[in-house]
Amino acid sequence: MLNKEDISDHFQKLQDDICRALEEADGGSTFYEDKWTRDAGGGGRSRVLSNGNVIEKGGVNFSAVYGPTPEKILNALQLPHSDFFATGVSIVLHPFNPWVPIIHMNVRYFEMSEGTWWFGGGIDLTPHYIDVEQASWFHQKLLEVCEKYDKAFYPEFKKWADDYFYLRHRRETRGVGGIFFDRLNDKSTAHSKSDLFDFVMEVGKSFAVIYTALMQLNRDKPFDDQHKKWQNLRRGRYVEFNLVWDKGTKFGLDTDGRTESILMSMPPLAGWIYDHQPKKDSDEAKTSSLLKKDINWLEIKL
Amino acid sequence: MLNKEDISDHFQKLQDDICRALEEADGGSTFYEDKWTRDAGGGGRSRVLSNGNVIEKGGVNFSAVYGPTPEKILNALQLPHSDFFATGVSIVLHPFNPWVPIIHMNVRYFEMSEGTWWFGGGIDLTPHYIDVEQASWFHQKLLEVCEKYDKAFYPEFKKWADDYFYLRHRRETRGVGGIFFDRLNDKSTAHSKSDLFDFVMEVGKSFAVIYTALMQLNRDKPFDDQHKKWQNLRRGRYVEFNLVWDKGTKFGLDTDGRTESILMSMPPLAGWIYDHQPKKDSDEAKTSSLLKKDINWLEIKL
Repeated sequence: MLNKEDISDHFQKLQDDICRALEEADGGSTFYEDKWTRDAGGGGRSRVLSNGNVIEKGGVNFSAVYGPTPEKILNALQLPHSDFFATGVSIVLHPFNPWVPIIHMNVRYFEMSEGTWWFGGGIDLTPHYIDVEQASWFHQKLLEVCEKYDKAFYPEFKKWADDYFYLRHRRETRGVGGIFFDRLNDKSTAHSKSDLFDFVMEVGKSFAVIYTALMQLNRDKPFDDQHKKWQNLRRGRYVEFNLVWDKGTKFGLDTDGRTESILMSMPPLAGWIYDHQPKKDSDEAKTSSLLKKDINWLEIKL
Repeated sequence: MLNKEDISDHFQKLQDDICRALEEADGGSTFYEDKWTRDAGGGGRSRVLSNGNVIEKGGVNFSAVYGPTPEKILNALQLPHSDFFATGVSIVLHPFNPWVPIIHMNVRYFEMSEGTWWFGGGIDLTPHYIDVEQASWFHQKLLEVCEKYDKAFYPEFKKWADDYFYLRHRRETRGVGGIFFDRLNDKSTAHSKSDLFDFVMEVGKSFAVIYTALMQLNRDKPFDDQHKKWQNLRRGRYVEFNLVWDKGTKFGLDTDGRTESILMSMPPLAGWIYDHQPKKDSDEAKTSSLLKKDINWLEIKL
């Protein structure tokens, strides 16, 4: 029977494997590790890569924390007092070259002493410039991971990502989406704990394969100051999403979480220009026009 | 009797006067005006100055909006359905030279058709590098404005600013504070509507005097890449405050306000470095050590 320590061990190993793959693909820098402990129980290993050949600022965070369940969760779930255990791997990578997309991945497991448990996670892509072919390929890869476990997963989790990674105040999506899922257990799905764990690990393992391919494809594309300026604006939107809408970030900051780990997702640099409008028919305008929900990336015309 | 149109007219003129004073002091650029209307009633004049000699990005916003009171306000105040009228001037200036402080000013008036009304506002200063003497002078100026109306205002509104402009997740203040006040009316204070209006206008008029002096004092100080890097980090904290904690921003984005006007406060560029710690005894470390509540800036030893 799969217990929380097993899950946490696998997540820790996943962090190791991903860091190794990213260091190899980047070739210019290595991860710096910051181990931390949490007063109320548990801790983590924050790993940061800065000023690599491709990655300008990237965080690959592992944590396993436990203790009395925060009031906010108990209230939200209408549960009596109990202890919780939460473990996960969370990644955001900001590349230097604007043609390389920003990526985010997260896998997580949560359980409470009274018996509730679930898995959550996902991968989503935020290109500064949307390449339709690459976005389509990205979704194809996620479809393949999902279909090994359940035909219903991809369409459901793709829609979930569209809805979750949405900047309501901008009426635009954060990027081209991907998959997002939460509260997966034997009640919310037709799958056992062990099957769901396998699915989540498969998502985690697909991350490095997918992203190193995207790094490789785009890392040597030329760019100029105008591309960097646009990248800063897109990073500004990334900041807006994370600080205004992201439930994980809000919850972390509200419940006195470890600020530096929570805000590892922030870009090295971000910019804002009042009411910026991309030029008609530019690459920037094309990208803006594709920041919408419900695009079927699998069948979009190239 | 002072009515809402009078107040709004005076605020509009205040915007004009401030823009003129800032253009003159800057000397390198002028404000671009963007007039907008609100579907549900009213509108505003957003004014933006970019790439001046001193101001890198600044917004001076006037608005006067009305219509059915948003549900969120009615719920918060436990009031029945009614119409509202809100007018104000709101300013954030981001200078290019890191030795010139960021400043924020706001004056506002709110009333509802059932009779409730109040004034709010304030001025607060966010130096990238805290100059104790200048911070002290800044507070002295605010004290003088307050004391013309009420001896109790400065201590009360100074504490209010300390508590309001606070980044709980960083355990630091946004800058050296200033004054902040809200819901001032004939019930919450011993003053008439006309007196409170005079006080608020005095705050508004003091803004250009104070800030142009600070521009003048610091605009020609030399700086290098390290100072700019630190400025970006401090601007990052400014972004965090505005998007995570500022009630006005949250409310605006939540209630489908005009995004570009709400986010005029964003800096042109901002940066994040994982777990950045200033060097011991550096100017940066000194600034960090002063980002605390309850400093008596009027009597701090220079």
